[in-house]
Amino acid sequence: MASEPQILYSDKFTAEAMVKWLSSFGQDRSGGVSRLLYSSSWVEAQHALKGKMEHAGLTTYFDSVGNLFGRLEGKENNSKTILTGSHIDSVVNGGVYDGVYGIIASLLAVQRLYQAYGKPKKTLEVVSLCEEEGSRFPLTFWGSGSITGKYSLEDIQNLTDSEGTSFTNAMKEAGFDPMNYQSPQRTDIACFVELHVEQGILLDRQAKSLGMVSHIVGQRRFTIQITGESNHAGTTPMPYRKDAMTTASHFISYLTAKAQETDPGLVATVGKITAKPNVPNVIAGEVSFTLDVRHYNEEVIDEFCRHLFTYFESFTKNEEIQLAIHQWMSVKPVKMDPELTDLFVKIALNKNISHLSLVSGAGHDAQMFGTFCPTALLFVPSVGGISHSPKEYTKSGDLEKGIDVLTEFLYKLAYE
Amino acid sequence: MASEPQILYSDKFTAEAMVKWLSSFGQDRSGGVSRLLYSSSWVEAQHALKGKMEHAGLTTYFDSVGNLFGRLEGKENNSKTILTGSHIDSVVNGGVYDGVYGIIASLLAVQRLYQAYGKPKKTLEVVSLCEEEGSRFPLTFWGSGSITGKYSLEDIQNLTDSEGTSFTNAMKEAGFDPMNYQSPQRTDIACFVELHVEQGILLDRQAKSLGMVSHIVGQRRFTIQITGESNHAGTTPMPYRKDAMTTASHFISYLTAKAQETDPGLVATVGKITAKPNVPNVIAGEVSFTLDVRHYNEEVIDEFCRHLFTYFESFTKNEEIQLAIHQWMSVKPVKMDPELTDLFVKIALNKNISHLSLVSGAGHDAQMFGTFCPTALLFVPSVGGISHSPKEYTKSGDLEKGIDVLTEFLYKLAYE
Repeated sequence: MASEPQILYSDKFTAEAMVKWLSSFGQDRSGGVSRLLYSSSWVEAQHALKGKMEHAGLTTYFDSVGNLFGRLEGKENNSKTILTGSHIDSVVNGGVYDGVYGIIASLLAVQRLYQAYGKPKKTLEVVSLCEEEGSRFPLTFWGSGSITGKYSLEDIQNLTDSEGTSFTNAMKEAGFDPMNYQSPQRTDIACFVELHVEQGILLDRQAKSLGMVSHIVGQRRFTIQITGESNHAGTTPMPYRKDAMTTASHFISYLTAKAQETDPGLVATVGKITAKPNVPNVIAGEVSFTLDVRHYNEEVIDEFCRHLFTYFESFTKNEEIQLAIHQWMSVKPVKMDPELTDLFVKIALNKNISHLSLVSGAGHDAQMFGTFCPTALLFVPSVGGISHSPKEYTKSGDLEKGIDVLTEFLYKLAYE
Repeated sequence: MASEPQILYSDKFTAEAMVKWLSSFGQDRSGGVSRLLYSSSWVEAQHALKGKMEHAGLTTYFDSVGNLFGRLEGKENNSKTILTGSHIDSVVNGGVYDGVYGIIASLLAVQRLYQAYGKPKKTLEVVSLCEEEGSRFPLTFWGSGSITGKYSLEDIQNLTDSEGTSFTNAMKEAGFDPMNYQSPQRTDIACFVELHVEQGILLDRQAKSLGMVSHIVGQRRFTIQITGESNHAGTTPMPYRKDAMTTASHFISYLTAKAQETDPGLVATVGKITAKPNVPNVIAGEVSFTLDVRHYNEEVIDEFCRHLFTYFESFTKNEEIQLAIHQWMSVKPVKMDPELTDLFVKIALNKNISHLSLVSGAGHDAQMFGTFCPTALLFVPSVGGISHSPKEYTKSGDLEKGIDVLTEFLYKLAYE
């Protein structure tokens, strides 16, 4: 155990205190956080964080889209960069941990290493990614997508927010004039490591402190539109009805049961439904509902959807009802790097920190990096599985355990 | 057959022409009719109709709520009144036949009898009821409810339309100042007879010209609220979900199947559904849907609802989901007068007009009169079962057959 770093902790720099500090930018009186991309609270948060990074001895810089980096140069010549961090933006009325915890964890881990051991062999960079949530503009992963070369200025040319502000104007106002744009794509990244709150209930239910993510699920989203015949609720006998509501209900029941029996890792959700004319005494002529399907194995998603839609089609054909299936989202599953993930497991075992291996059902910046460089994603528990809510909460002890493991992890990568 | 009246028909007074004329008040360019209670088109229609009634030799008068009567005094002293008609108001963007056909049929029948046979033994009155649909204010059957003593000024004191106009102001502006209100309740009605379009598909499907209504269904309406737990669509495994959408879907499928197997006369409709938060990637924490149940036998409705709600309660208890059932409408079934209805059947048989006996699944003014005096309700077909739509249509021949039978019917009641 001689190689384990001995870090000096300071109350001033507990993870909890730092998370609360950074989340205070954009937080309202009720505790909800709304820190949307390029908003004034976003600008303030990034600049305040820049100050903290500099105070910790890191060299800071922004790229053209507003990703903030704090760099600790390695002693080895031309060493590739070990990048660690998460996103600074939030959803509307979100919690304090989502994104922010990963940034703070990275900053504290690097700061503690620097304080204890001085300069690393390999370069370390903490990143505060500008955007992940898609809560201002209809685009997600703008930060990690720009670094990994998946996005460029072209992708945001025609986007506006709900108030009509264009993406390019918002950038400019935040200090990132698209006229000065230089590609943020990096070619010097050795690996990416992200800590994040689970936003799910597995760790909390099983009373584990850490989750080592093996995969981030793939996703498909569809809108399924059923068109029957709107008619009088009193004068149309049951056998004569072409009731879109009844058909939709049957489909939702069917797909839920099918998802349950298909694979424990598969989730299928109907979150949104709309009926027309949507009045109590008229048979619904049209019902649309969304379907969100996720699994870490794309073949399982394919097979599930194929089965479902074949069933829907044969059912509606028999009932003389029109069916339209529109797919509007498709994201492939991403596998995290097994070696990096194993290293996390070893460290947790060594430190006697309870943990489990799991699949991330939510999207994360790590999925953009996962197809670009070796990537690891580590979860700390979300109490009650609650996220995207002011009620989002992670115990202070679990925040510290995540940072403890990350510190050791970065030590092994950058110092050994 | 010697007693059958020989009526002289005139092209000027075909039912179709008269229906089109009366429905032109409140009709827009697309053909839809919006003639709401006490609106300017309603006022114009009632006054134009008053003129037609007077031209036909009837004595006209309004009561305090705007029901228009055209009276043909009987020769017998103190004879009670045989009342026939329907409602002048329409839904928003409705068709030309709903309500109007019953008024025109009554007027033409009485006019033809008067022309052919002079004054009747018993007094006949044609009525254009002021309101039935409830499409301006949240109240239905204001016309027939006032005549039968079920409503008084108290019932409308606090009602306003969607634009904030009070019921009382609307009355006053239409020429019926509530300050001058005298109870419209009648004590001299011998019976009430209404002709109406079916607004259902039975006559059209079975190619019959007339429907003799045996009952008007009872109705119950409920809102059923299911509260589960809103959660992340990606990170919440299927077994951990409390998905209100899945539960609602199961209930809708269950109640539809149960309604189909319970009784051919039972209809159960879920016309309206709302989900919260109603976004694709969040499990619905709350789903509310309406349930409209109708049958001509109240015990069948009771038994069906009892079974359903017992099932709902036991299901949600097992699933740790909250259930709230709110009943907001209850209307008892009303039986039409068998003797009057039999008379319609005999006349149709005699005239070789195809017909069937049926239950009205929709509400009609006849249901207010049905518990007040002997009442009969006769349907003519709605092509395709379509109603409350500009596409509402009844063939001219069927309109005439209804009037033909009504004329004979009134002859037998008032002249023989």
